[in-house]
Amino acid sequence: GKLSVQIREQTGGQIFTGIKVALETKDDLSIHYTPGIAEPCREITKNPELARKLTVKKNLVAVISDGSAVLGLGNIGPEAALPVMEGKSMLFKQFGDVDAIPIVLDTQNSAEIIETIKNIAPTLGGINLEDISAPRCFEIEEKLIEMLDIPVFHDDQHGTAICCLAALKNALKVVDKKKEDIKVVISGAGAAGIAIAKLLKEWGVKNLVLIDSKGIVSKSRENLHKTKQLFAIDEEGGLAEAMVNADVFVGVSKPNVLTSEMIKTMNVDSIVFAMSNPDPEVLPGIAKTAGVKIMATGRSDFPNQINNVLVFPGLFRGILNGGIRKITTEIKLIAAETLADLVKNPNVENIIPSPLDKSVAPAIAAMIQHVK
Amino acid sequence: GKLSVQIREQTGGQIFTGIKVALETKDDLSIHYTPGIAEPCREITKNPELARKLTVKKNLVAVISDGSAVLGLGNIGPEAALPVMEGKSMLFKQFGDVDAIPIVLDTQNSAEIIETIKNIAPTLGGINLEDISAPRCFEIEEKLIEMLDIPVFHDDQHGTAICCLAALKNALKVVDKKKEDIKVVISGAGAAGIAIAKLLKEWGVKNLVLIDSKGIVSKSRENLHKTKQLFAIDEEGGLAEAMVNADVFVGVSKPNVLTSEMIKTMNVDSIVFAMSNPDPEVLPGIAKTAGVKIMATGRSDFPNQINNVLVFPGLFRGILNGGIRKITTEIKLIAAETLADLVKNPNVENIIPSPLDKSVAPAIAAMIQHVK
Repeated sequence: GKLSVQIREQTGGQIFTGIKVALETKDDLSIHYTPGIAEPCREITKNPELARKLTVKKNLVAVISDGSAVLGLGNIGPEAALPVMEGKSMLFKQFGDVDAIPIVLDTQNSAEIIETIKNIAPTLGGINLEDISAPRCFEIEEKLIEMLDIPVFHDDQHGTAICCLAALKNALKVVDKKKEDIKVVISGAGAAGIAIAKLLKEWGVKNLVLIDSKGIVSKSRENLHKTKQLFAIDEEGGLAEAMVNADVFVGVSKPNVLTSEMIKTMNVDSIVFAMSNPDPEVLPGIAKTAGVKIMATGRSDFPNQINNVLVFPGLFRGILNGGIRKITTEIKLIAAETLADLVKNPNVENIIPSPLDKSVAPAIAAMIQHVK
Repeated sequence: GKLSVQIREQTGGQIFTGIKVALETKDDLSIHYTPGIAEPCREITKNPELARKLTVKKNLVAVISDGSAVLGLGNIGPEAALPVMEGKSMLFKQFGDVDAIPIVLDTQNSAEIIETIKNIAPTLGGINLEDISAPRCFEIEEKLIEMLDIPVFHDDQHGTAICCLAALKNALKVVDKKKEDIKVVISGAGAAGIAIAKLLKEWGVKNLVLIDSKGIVSKSRENLHKTKQLFAIDEEGGLAEAMVNADVFVGVSKPNVLTSEMIKTMNVDSIVFAMSNPDPEVLPGIAKTAGVKIMATGRSDFPNQINNVLVFPGLFRGILNGGIRKITTEIKLIAAETLADLVKNPNVENIIPSPLDKSVAPAIAAMIQHVK
C-alpha cells in the first residue's frame, strides 16, 4: 500500500506516451507533421473507416470510470479512481499490447456519461467501462453499445462473468457434474452478479438463485429492478435457505457472508468461488474444513485466483485485430471456453491459469479475432 | 503526402502507450495493481490535489478538436482530424516530454463540447484545444478556462500569437523600429488573427489594422462579432488601403492576397509574416523583389519559419512543472520574450529559432515554471 504511493511519487503514474516515428530532421517533420499530415486527413475525409487503419484508433482503448464503485472503496469520485484506471491501462498494455488510456469523469449522471463517452468515441477503437455502480452501469453500457460502432465492455460485469465461467467449466470437469444439473447460488446482484447470472444462464445453467442485500431475489418481492426480475424465482428466504443443496456458490458481495453451517448444507463435491476482494465471502481454510471440494478467490495468495486480467487484454486484442464492433454472447462464451481450455489437466488447486501467464491473452485473441 | 499514409499503414498512428513499472511477479501485481493500488486511491480520496502527484494527471495533456477547422482542409470532422491531433501529441512528447493524447469529438455544438471536455478534465493536467473554428473557439476556450482548474490553451490562437510576437520582436530589433511607432496590418480575423491582435496590443503595439473577408474591421460596419469590435477602427477600405504606410504585415488568411503593389506602399524596412499554410499570402521571392526587408512564413523551405511547435511543448512543460493553473497574458509574454531571446544576433534571415531546436522548449519551460 504505502509502497504503491511511494513508487507513484517517483513515477507520477504508471502510463506514459511514446512516439512511433523519428523526428530529427526537416524531412521527418514534413512527413510526419505538416505538410505531409494533410494526406491521411484527406484520405480519412473520403473514407472515415480508414481512421481504423491510419490512426491511433487502430489500437486505442479508453478505460473509463465515474469513480462511483471503485474496488471495495465505494463512491470515491474521479480523481481517486484514477490509479485504478491507470493500473487497468497498464495491464491492457502488458498482456494484450493494447494502447489504453485512463479517463475519469466529472459526472455521475447517466445521460451525461453516455453523451461524454459518445463524444470522445471517434478517437477510440474500444471502450472499457470500469467501476460504475449498478444499476446505472447496465443502462450506460446498453445505450453506448446501441449508439457506437466500436466495442463497449463493462469489465466489472462481463470480464468477471467470463472469468468465472471459465473457472466453473474446469471445476465441473474436476467434480464430474453437468451444467444442466447444478444449482448455483450467486451472492451479490450488482454489476458482476447480474452479468454472471446472465452468462451462466446463456451457457446452460438451469437452476440459478440470485441473492441481494434483501435475500433471495424472489418473484414475491416488490419494486425489483428489471435486471433482477430476469432471475426472480418462486423460492423465498435468505442465503442460508438458498445454500441448501447448492452445488456452486459464487460470491461477488461482501466479506464473510458464507458460514461453515451454510456450506455443510451444500451437495457433495461443492464448489465455492468467494471473489469479494480483498476479503472473500469465506476464507479458504474455513471453507475446506466445512467440506468444500474446490475453492477459488480473487486473491493471489490462495490457489485458483479468478482475476479479470485473464480476460480483458486478450478479448480486446482479438476484437481490435478482427475489427469486431460488438461483443456478442458468442464472443464471451468463446473467451470463457478458451480460457478454461488453457488448463490442460484441471484439478482441485488448478482450475484457472495464473494472471501472470502471458500466453493467455494471445490464445484468447486468436480464437476471437476471426469471429464473424 | 503519400509517404505519410504509407508509414501510417505500417505504424497505425504515431502514438503508443507504455508502462513505467515492471509487471513480472505476483509481488509486482500486488504493488502496482490490487491490493496495493487501493492506497493511492485512499490518499487521493482524502486529498484530491494528490492526483497531480500520484497519477498520469501530473504530465498528461489532451489535444482536443472537433475537426471543424483543420489545417487548410476546413471542416473535415473528427476522424479525419485525428492524424493532426496525433501529430501534435507527438510533438508535445518529442520537444516537451509531455504525455499527450489526441481526442477528437463527435459534436460541433459549443455547449456539448464544453460539457464533454469538462467531464474528462479530472484525468488531465492540461488541455490543448486545436483546430476549432472561430468564433466558436473563443467562447469554448473562455468557458473552459473559467470552469476548470487546469490550464486550457487554444493553440491556433495563442501559440500562433506568441510565436508571431517573438518573431516580430527580433524583426523590429533588426530594422531598429519601436513597437509604439509601428503600424501593423493583420490579414485574417479568425482564431489566429484575433489572438495576434490581442497579444500585440497587450504587448504595446498602438496602431493595429485588422482585416477580415469584408476588408478593414471598421467601426462603421454592422453586426461585427464582439471579438472583432475590440479592434474596430475609424478607417474603411480593403487590404490595399490598409497597407499604405504599414510597417508590418501579418498574414493568417489566404494564399496570394498580398500583392507587389500593396507591398510597395509600405514604409521602408518593411516586415512581412505570410503564415497561410502551405501557400503563403505572398511568396518570399515576390515580397523581396517588391522591397520587403524581413520575410517569414510558416514553411520549412524558406528562412524564418514561424511554427507553433516552438511554443506549446515548452509552455506546457513549464506549466506542468510549476503546477500553474491559468495561462495568463504575463505567461504568454514571457514565452514570446524567451523565444525571441534565444536568437542571439537576429538578422534578416534569422529572427526565430528552428522548430527542430531541442533547446527551445526547456528554455521556455524554465522561464515559465516559477511564475506566480
